[in-house]
Amino acid sequence: MADNQELLLQQIKEQGELVRKLKAAKESSEKVKEEVAKLLALKSQLTPEDAAPQKFTLKTPKGTRDYNPQQMTIRNDVLEKIITVFKRHGAECIDTPVFELKEVLTGKYGEDSKLIYDLKDQGGEILSLRYDLTVPLARYLAMSKINTLKRYHIAKVYRRDNPAMTRGRYREFYQCDFDIAGQYDLMVPDAECLKVVSEILDALKIGDYVLKVNHRRLLDGMFEACGVPADNFRATCSTVDKLDKSPWEEVRTEMINEKGVSPEAADRIGEYVRLNGGTELAEKLLKDEKLSKTKAAVEGLEGIKLLLHYCELLGIKDKILFDLSLARGLDYYTGVIYEAVLTQPIKVGNEEQTVGSIAGGGRYDNLVGMFDSKNKQVPCVGVSIGVERIFSVMEARVAAGDMRVRTSDVEVYVASAQKNFLDERMKICAELWNAGIKTEQSYKKNPKMLNQLQHCEETGIPLAVVLGDSELKRGVVKIRNIASREENEIPREKLVEELIARIAALNTNMNGNK
Amino acid sequence: MADNQELLLQQIKEQGELVRKLKAAKESSEKVKEEVAKLLALKSQLTPEDAAPQKFTLKTPKGTRDYNPQQMTIRNDVLEKIITVFKRHGAECIDTPVFELKEVLTGKYGEDSKLIYDLKDQGGEILSLRYDLTVPLARYLAMSKINTLKRYHIAKVYRRDNPAMTRGRYREFYQCDFDIAGQYDLMVPDAECLKVVSEILDALKIGDYVLKVNHRRLLDGMFEACGVPADNFRATCSTVDKLDKSPWEEVRTEMINEKGVSPEAADRIGEYVRLNGGTELAEKLLKDEKLSKTKAAVEGLEGIKLLLHYCELLGIKDKILFDLSLARGLDYYTGVIYEAVLTQPIKVGNEEQTVGSIAGGGRYDNLVGMFDSKNKQVPCVGVSIGVERIFSVMEARVAAGDMRVRTSDVEVYVASAQKNFLDERMKICAELWNAGIKTEQSYKKNPKMLNQLQHCEETGIPLAVVLGDSELKRGVVKIRNIASREENEIPREKLVEELIARIAALNTNMNGNK
Repeated sequence: MADNQELLLQQIKEQGELVRKLKAAKESSEKVKEEVAKLLALKSQLTPEDAAPQKFTLKTPKGTRDYNPQQMTIRNDVLEKIITVFKRHGAECIDTPVFELKEVLTGKYGEDSKLIYDLKDQGGEILSLRYDLTVPLARYLAMSKINTLKRYHIAKVYRRDNPAMTRGRYREFYQCDFDIAGQYDLMVPDAECLKVVSEILDALKIGDYVLKVNHRRLLDGMFEACGVPADNFRATCSTVDKLDKSPWEEVRTEMINEKGVSPEAADRIGEYVRLNGGTELAEKLLKDEKLSKTKAAVEGLEGIKLLLHYCELLGIKDKILFDLSLARGLDYYTGVIYEAVLTQPIKVGNEEQTVGSIAGGGRYDNLVGMFDSKNKQVPCVGVSIGVERIFSVMEARVAAGDMRVRTSDVEVYVASAQKNFLDERMKICAELWNAGIKTEQSYKKNPKMLNQLQHCEETGIPLAVVLGDSELKRGVVKIRNIASREENEIPREKLVEELIARIAALNTNMNGNK
Repeated sequence: MADNQELLLQQIKEQGELVRKLKAAKESSEKVKEEVAKLLALKSQLTPEDAAPQKFTLKTPKGTRDYNPQQMTIRNDVLEKIITVFKRHGAECIDTPVFELKEVLTGKYGEDSKLIYDLKDQGGEILSLRYDLTVPLARYLAMSKINTLKRYHIAKVYRRDNPAMTRGRYREFYQCDFDIAGQYDLMVPDAECLKVVSEILDALKIGDYVLKVNHRRLLDGMFEACGVPADNFRATCSTVDKLDKSPWEEVRTEMINEKGVSPEAADRIGEYVRLNGGTELAEKLLKDEKLSKTKAAVEGLEGIKLLLHYCELLGIKDKILFDLSLARGLDYYTGVIYEAVLTQPIKVGNEEQTVGSIAGGGRYDNLVGMFDSKNKQVPCVGVSIGVERIFSVMEARVAAGDMRVRTSDVEVYVASAQKNFLDERMKICAELWNAGIKTEQSYKKNPKMLNQLQHCEETGIPLAVVLGDSELKRGVVKIRNIASREENEIPREKLVEELIARIAALNTNMNGNK
């Protein structure tokens, strides 16, 4: 907007105020007309662009959304619970830029590479928005020559998909990852990742769940034993991955028609992927005629056995299901793979929502080496918590009235029933802020008592300090409990002390009622 | 990477391991040679790209950086202190997408618009990365038809500048904003913003500071009184803004040569912008022959007087300096403007760093209206905390050894001096995690005692549980205080209870020593 246009807008605003004042004061219609004419003259100077400054549809980009205070409160509460678990396991926090050199992302996501957002060429560098937090982690480890790290990373990632936004899926969304990098003994960090997921889902109280596990080496061995050519393993694997959404018959057809798997091989695969169980299943498969002859399958099955043993020691074996149909979409997994699935639909109001997969991950031992000039590997294993699904469940619960959230933490509202108390209110606010008390007041000079109390009720502020002439003269103030409407007089100099005691009592009550 | 190449890499890895094992076992050189030949044959199948997978320079995009655990710890500590103040004042939290429709940003930043990052056209939508958090806030208010909001927003913004990265300036950086939107009484929310800044700078203990204030209407009135044409106000204002970095003579020259201000007008401006003080200066200027005849100047001066009065009530008047040279770069300010400046260089190790401006903001009453089809205004005032500058001061202090940070919160390490204790360690870890104790162990089956204790010392873990055969047989475990190296035997079943008591005692000591 040009400078003089901005000034013009200011003049129009002032002239408008003047006209309103004159009308309110019931000035002579002649006088009002005169000023209205001036206003119209000013408005006529506006270019059409300024008169209608908003010419495009006001919206956020496709597939994105704003998070309002209620959504942010839900999101921050969920993340706080998750971070508590990450920190309990000693994880450190890192962050990486929102964009990477395009080459860093190239060749990491298979078919999904087409979903990557590219930036315009910015003076020689070709940049893309990050697609996940795993590839940036691998780039970070290789670039910083770090061999061991246990880190969490919570940040937004970008996928130019056509997501079903009604189901809580967006093009910009939060990922929340926990990974352990380092050359360690088999399945020890892998088992801890499952423990972390189970602690998180328990803390979130989101319902019953099962932690499905499988092993990429077992899948490879299974494909080999069933007669799938080696260069067809990944493609077949990504077809198996669809079993959580499609029936076997459809998956079989895709294998045969699109992935070039023979009908006989597909049928053999079909026998295996129906299997799930625990240690006894791994034992049984180790004796399976075909699998026991395949090195990869034996390695995978031994791995699963060890993982289940560690899960027993960690006290989570009853949550684990060894499931041969679990495949995971991403190319880069090399060992154990996991997925946490809610076993019950979630109740929201009077309806039930099927949520399904709520966390996933696995071992990827070759990804860091792809960034190292000498192909030096840093083995990694990790898990990603599906926080967006968790957020949308919580949002739906709030919308259905099953859950309440307060979007601010204010404890005390400083109010006055009478006019000209702004100065006094300000002094008291400053005193309370300086004492660390979360305090608010009206930004109006002479707010109405009813509006002030309504604000407290609507936003859940538990206490109000109510100022009045007669009380101040007697050296007292009133404290009002908003819920009970009870009011007590307190000596002015004891106000801070008394409020701190009352807030502590309220917090104790709240925690006691949880 | 093609699927078969990935398998090939796996085979090479396995074959390499086999060769190493044979060599370690001192197998016959014939046998070793045979397997080495197989390894070389496998390697020869690699395409050049896979043999040297890393062909581009491994780096983050220009002007960006990763945040390592130490930097993130510093960052999270600083932000936690800031958020505590925001919440004390009842602010709610929002978030917006990292990119906006380009039209949303167009025409808001004046000359700096060239620094905006554009994305590639993604199927019809032209998108840009956000340049600040103020314009997205205004878009959000207009789009959601919200008339009142007190919110904070902490997120990364993007400016394709050529920043001096050594001085802590980047193309991707955090902004941390607090704003109050709503039609309220003059200067009431404006004064609270200054109180918020002063509470934050006090909490951060970053050194002495002054809160400079000025008023855009006073600047406009001053330019008018000095004879600058109205359509030249903004350009002249942005030249005055350079006074914090350049001497008056240079600014004067730019005014005359580049902004078309007459030498006489420039000299008159020069007289005013040298002035700073308190209420008495505002009083004096209200009697100034030229200014007192200019409506805008009087409005600005009356505003400053009222602001200073409120600052006195809020107990921060000694921090405020009314400074006529303060102009602020952005076009959209319409009323009060602020800037917090550290008055002393900061001591870092044996050196001193000049930090300067550390927060800034002001009132912008016309920005939301620019997004509304009926030009409906939502007056706003806010402040942005220069968190990147604060981060880099803290980072420098850590680097100089003036400050220590722990990047993980682990309280207890579960160790063993003997072999084959992994199962027992795992059980104890699970028990401690379930009790909410922040616990770690080695991911190795048989770690060396020295390495385990070293890890505790390096990362500041205060307590270790040390497992041994003889103790376990007697039903006890040892707890070791890492700092004092003192060890005590505790009955196995009292372990959790005892650790919780010790952690509580350590925390009390630490807080007592602060």
